Amino acid sequence: MTTEPMRSFMDRLRDRWAHADTLVCVGLDPEPAKFPAKFAHDPDAIFHFCRDIVDATAPYVCAFKPQIAHFAAAHAEEALRMLILHIGFRYPDIPVILDSKRGDIGSTAQHYASEAFDRYGADAVTVNPYLGRDSVQPFLDRADKGVVILCRTSNPGAGDLQDMVLYDKCGSGRPLYQHVAEKIARDWNENDNCALVVGATWPEQLREVRAIVGDVPFLVPGVGAQGGDVAAVVTNARTRDGAGLVVSSSRAILYASSGDDYAEAAANAARALRDEINRHR
Amino acid sequence: MTTEPMRSFMDRLRDRWAHADTLVCVGLDPEPAKFPAKFAHDPDAIFHFCRDIVDATAPYVCAFKPQIAHFAAAHAEEALRMLILHIGFRYPDIPVILDSKRGDIGSTAQHYASEAFDRYGADAVTVNPYLGRDSVQPFLDRADKGVVILCRTSNPGAGDLQDMVLYDKCGSGRPLYQHVAEKIARDWNENDNCALVVGATWPEQLREVRAIVGDVPFLVPGVGAQGGDVAAVVTNARTRDGAGLVVSSSRAILYASSGDDYAEAAANAARALRDEINRHR
Repeated sequence: MTTEPMRSFMDRLRDRWAHADTLVCVGLDPEPAKFPAKFAHDPDAIFHFCRDIVDATAPYVCAFKPQIAHFAAAHAEEALRMLILHIGFRYPDIPVILDSKRGDIGSTAQHYASEAFDRYGADAVTVNPYLGRDSVQPFLDRADKGVVILCRTSNPGAGDLQDMVLYDKCGSGRPLYQHVAEKIARDWNENDNCALVVGATWPEQLREVRAIVGDVPFLVPGVGAQGGDVAAVVTNARTRDGAGLVVSSSRAILYASSGDDYAEAAANAARALRDEINRHR
Repeated sequence: MTTEPMRSFMDRLRDRWAHADTLVCVGLDPEPAKFPAKFAHDPDAIFHFCRDIVDATAPYVCAFKPQIAHFAAAHAEEALRMLILHIGFRYPDIPVILDSKRGDIGSTAQHYASEAFDRYGADAVTVNPYLGRDSVQPFLDRADKGVVILCRTSNPGAGDLQDMVLYDKCGSGRPLYQHVAEKIARDWNENDNCALVVGATWPEQLREVRAIVGDVPFLVPGVGAQGGDVAAVVTNARTRDGAGLVVSSSRAILYASSGDDYAEAAANAARALRDEINRHR
């Protein structure tokens, strides 16, 4: 028996875009208070609910993105581990991005990389660039894994730091997030394993970042509940081949129905988002 | 029986500075490979080792700072929770800063605040400012808790983003970390519960940030193993009353001896650091 070596996150993501014809990512942000009534007395509600969502939406997604705080605040590390195992076993073509936005120095960054990739078996992880390249290096060094770095986030306060304008001596200015984008695409992406977080709520910024970084993939949160416009996202941020995007929606899919049809409603919402995105590619 | 209301992190920190006459913080970064031989077959080695260090060094510290990645990578959430419980029970005057450098948006930030303060019972938490004020707001709103925000970190790559110079239209420039410091001191600190991370490895930057933020406390990592100079730190960063600093050392205290005298060696290292700091206050 021969074992095929595990392909890299980037190769798997590109394959999934092509073969499943979808740029949708389902964000797994479990909020037990929003679960359907049938989970009220289930001690493994977080795992069971997320597993049902995964099984219902898998045909329509290019990636799953569990958000670690939702598990950690509920003491549900084991549910997270089991969920990622379940995805890997049942849907080996769909990569998992662990959304943890870690950022720390040297030896501690190593531990965060180990948490994401070794403990939980994630294929990619979100990280924060504020501490500089050496804080991201332990993630970058895992060439088979994806490193999804915050650039221009989707929240209302994103601009507080990210939009600060850095002028050069000639008086020509560019906001911080564009410098971050350029630094990552030019210097940090030696292993071709970087992606950028750019929020769907800022279509103009999506276009500017795309112009800077070429074909580096974007993780785009903020469609759905946060109000990002799908047509503007796809038009402004797709790559030349009509892909390059991981468009993430969480609440609008997970909680599409609070009744017994929650899984079917989630599948319908994921399929509708896939179709809406594909109309503009 | 009446119960006294819990005092705020800031009040407790100031009291501890005054009454215990120490600015030392012991960083609890457990690395099982560095533990003394007696822990080799102990299934609770992480808890037991950290507890011994806490018990040995408590007289010499103003705060303890467990670093969460070291626990998470080892599946040791329960050890972390037990350790913070132990500190609260045995040393109620010594606040606990959970070093997790979290940063995320809206509802997710709420979950991270809940993780730190409700699940683990920490008195303060480190957070990353890159996502802007709304990402920090759920922490700021906990007026009794401390919010320790990254400003100028101690690592070699700290300057990659933090030193980027923002010029105004007149051509006068200031690096990003100084803007961050000013924003926090002026706008984010409404509940008087903010502190800043400024690395010991950058004495000049410590002085500049101190000039900007008045008496806002600093968490100062980077003395000891990372080589920060204690005299320069204290001289440049103390407040007018000779305090205002939480000077954190981890490896140089935790692993002062790998023999059976590890606890005594840790106590000696913590006491020596306290004395060295106090000579320059």
